[in-house]
Amino acid sequence: MADAKKMTIILHSGDLDKVSSALILGTGALSMGMNVSIYFTFFGLQRLKKGKLAAGGLSKMNFLGLGKWMMSRKMRKARVESLDTLMKDFKDLGGKIIACEMTMGVMGICKDDLDQTIVDECGAVGTYLKEAMDSTINLFI
Amino acid sequence: MADAKKMTIILHSGDLDKVSSALILGTGALSMGMNVSIYFTFFGLQRLKKGKLAAGGLSKMNFLGLGKWMMSRKMRKARVESLDTLMKDFKDLGGKIIACEMTMGVMGICKDDLDQTIVDECGAVGTYLKEAMDSTINLFI
Amino acid sequence: MADAKKMTIILHSGDLDKVSSALILGTGALSMGMNVSIYFTFFGLQRLKKGKLAAGGLSKMNFLGLGKWMMSRKMRKARVESLDTLMKDFKDLGGKIIACEMTMGVMGICKDDLDQTIVDECGAVGTYLKEAMDSTINLFI
Repeated sequence: MADAKKMTIILHSGDLDKVSSALILGTGALSMGMNVSIYFTFFGLQRLKKGKLAAGGLSKMNFLGLGKWMMSRKMRKARVESLDTLMKDFKDLGGKIIACEMTMGVMGICKDDLDQTIVDECGAVGTYLKEAMDSTINLFI
Repeated sequence: MADAKKMTIILHSGDLDKVSSALILGTGALSMGMNVSIYFTFFGLQRLKKGKLAAGGLSKMNFLGLGKWMMSRKMRKARVESLDTLMKDFKDLGGKIIACEMTMGVMGICKDDLDQTIVDECGAVGTYLKEAMDSTINLFI
Repeated sequence: MADAKKMTIILHSGDLDKVSSALILGTGALSMGMNVSIYFTFFGLQRLKKGKLAAGGLSKMNFLGLGKWMMSRKMRKARVESLDTLMKDFKDLGGKIIACEMTMGVMGICKDDLDQTIVDECGAVGTYLKEAMDSTINLFI
């Protein structure tokens, strides 16, 4: 059997739309038989705190929170899965979530803050690079 | 004859400078004989609406629109092609423009809003992944 | 001997956290025996001006400069290397810094503005694409 292809994503942003992109791409790739790891770092780490997955703003148009409210509403109408459902699907399909150990200190986040039902491991830059080196698709989001 | 190498770009941002980067990279790769697809999603989709290609702000420094005006002026002085010319070159050289169907609903954009002279097809995440899987260069912008 | 694997990064952003990510990934990859080039363009170019490497804001949370001050302080506490040390390590390990010639005009930056102790060469999009075409890891930051 040939090795499955692999996708590795660095999620540097914690914005609602960027986290959505990462998880939509991730679940899509998993359902096509690929292996997928998402490596959360910097602002992305904030989304791994308990109950904070969907707490990010938008990368644009976030006027007084209106942009976010409008987009969430449109996401529901457009039947895009909510982030929590997307994450559940991602994990159920075998996707791997890695938290960047080095930037946890920078972001003021400690291991106990992280949602242990989501995070598979904490790792350093070497952990990421080993995954990325044999990935067909590498993205920085 | 060996297969041509391929570049696939996800354009998540609608910012003037990011759209420029995507199209400069795209036309450069096409003129070197590569195949190129740009997959517009989220804020990037807004740039596919009729007449809106260059309507984005800047990702930084957009004080009261001044930043954008200054950069457009400098782009002209520096003889960087305008976005419309860049897009025309991209299409003439055989570049492919794909609109993300799933996020069109989220962004409140319907197919009739899109500039049909630019968009080659509407596609889902699977369309992107198939392109990306045999691309040498994959970028998320 | 097999060829060393290669990583090529486009640094479009000049934000403190994005520049940190690029250099942390770069030095990490170099220390694992990879070849690494970082291609600075648009806002990234501002960080190649003499003495301006760490002058960028944050991509989020930069309330009245407080975000940046807090993060710098936390970066010190978390023993993340400062950007100047990271850049020194990157260069000492053989990393290559390329400045995008075409966007220098757009950003109002001329060659004399650039820190010649950092920049290895100025190049156009073709310079980048040649590097990226035989890279295992390509990222746009």
